[in-house]
Amino acid sequence: MSDNSTRWNGVGDQSCILAATGAFVDLPAIGQLPDRTLAGLIDHTLLKPDATADQVRQLCSEAIEYNFFSVCVNPVQVPVAAAALAGTGIAVCTVIGFPLGATFTAIKVAETRQAIASGANEVDMVLDIGALKAGDHQRVEDDIRAVAEASGNHILKVIFETGLLGEAEIGKAAELSLSAGADFIKTSTGFAGSGATAAAIQLMRSVAGSAMGVKASGGVRDHAGAMEMIRAGASRIGASASIAIVNGGTSSSQY
Amino acid sequence: MSDNSTRWNGVGDQSCILAATGAFVDLPAIGQLPDRTLAGLIDHTLLKPDATADQVRQLCSEAIEYNFFSVCVNPVQVPVAAAALAGTGIAVCTVIGFPLGATFTAIKVAETRQAIASGANEVDMVLDIGALKAGDHQRVEDDIRAVAEASGNHILKVIFETGLLGEAEIGKAAELSLSAGADFIKTSTGFAGSGATAAAIQLMRSVAGSAMGVKASGGVRDHAGAMEMIRAGASRIGASASIAIVNGGTSSSQY
Repeated sequence: MSDNSTRWNGVGDQSCILAATGAFVDLPAIGQLPDRTLAGLIDHTLLKPDATADQVRQLCSEAIEYNFFSVCVNPVQVPVAAAALAGTGIAVCTVIGFPLGATFTAIKVAETRQAIASGANEVDMVLDIGALKAGDHQRVEDDIRAVAEASGNHILKVIFETGLLGEAEIGKAAELSLSAGADFIKTSTGFAGSGATAAAIQLMRSVAGSAMGVKASGGVRDHAGAMEMIRAGASRIGASASIAIVNGGTSSSQY
Repeated sequence: MSDNSTRWNGVGDQSCILAATGAFVDLPAIGQLPDRTLAGLIDHTLLKPDATADQVRQLCSEAIEYNFFSVCVNPVQVPVAAAALAGTGIAVCTVIGFPLGATFTAIKVAETRQAIASGANEVDMVLDIGALKAGDHQRVEDDIRAVAEASGNHILKVIFETGLLGEAEIGKAAELSLSAGADFIKTSTGFAGSGATAAAIQLMRSVAGSAMGVKASGGVRDHAGAMEMIRAGASRIGASASIAIVNGGTSSSQY
């Protein structure tokens, strides 16, 4: 849960600070954006179940080289990433109740606490999609609020899995996230349904306004795709294709 | 962790008792197996992230009608399934650290405890695939042992995600599971890589012997597929296509 100030130090440029606080970044048009600014909006991501500690260290080296905003890894890899990134100013992001969002609230809370104690600066939780589908909005909100409280002064992003939701459900999830104290709302896990779309980002931004950040994730594979998301309202990009994104190439990875 | 006796009551026929204790069931050849016996080997499964409580209740109704061994649902749905199946003799199975296996051991332990307290009879955990890939066998074994201890006298199955592993890794995972006190070893989550194959089941059974059960899951969609797995050495089947399996039809679902 954010107090709307930056909650960790070491990122110098304005776009990163804005991204860290969740405010919408008013970026220049495509072609006018320096790659380093774009890099500062990217959570460089490796969430494959068979990722090794060595692969996470490689991810961290890339994040340092390209000055990505953070690395995003599974909880068991948080200590590895935190050690590799100590003193660099690059954040460690991890995932909670991921990727199904279908575990007990108390477990999401405990996982959040342990992740932060292990060195995570930001946590991306998956909301209770089944409860949202069933119209049990109180349950969805209570689940988010409990994790928001457990996250303390660290950034909390709420993953919707927009590929499984209709427009009304996306809008409601954004309202519930805002009410429950989330700092960011995020489209996708990369493990179910389709990934981020410009339409979903626009809808999410229309509810978030300047009160929450919006993270596009899942299927963002190249520079054009990342810029499309930013123009639609994204203030953070989650991708494994981060190097291709800043270098203008492409990647076949879906995460 | 099993004490090699049945740990919950209400299943009457021998195949179910054998399945519950993990012993290898010496089944008749294809065509000679009554559907009800086959049904008694099936964990009727719904692990989609957007599954609602109503859908879980429907799953339970089907399990009662067809006399499946259990239903397998996400943790947040365990109380729903336990209420729907109370007094029926059909078990409630849930999943731990699912489907990535990449969270902290302490979180897998806490999730196991809460699942059992909420009415789960069996727990299917995902092992630390990254640690296995990295050759950190002690970590893999310690992770399983902690969950085995938390599971008390309830059945613990260890999911390998065989589609991401080589033969040597599958064999090692089986050895580590046995050493750590698992009751069953299980091929797949249905969310990554390929699902169960006869070759993987044969390899797993070669290590398990009669000391552990072997569960085939992921991509078992019809009667022929289920029988192929049983002939290869499976003593339990995880499927969402359970009705098609016992009725001789087929399903397009991968879970």
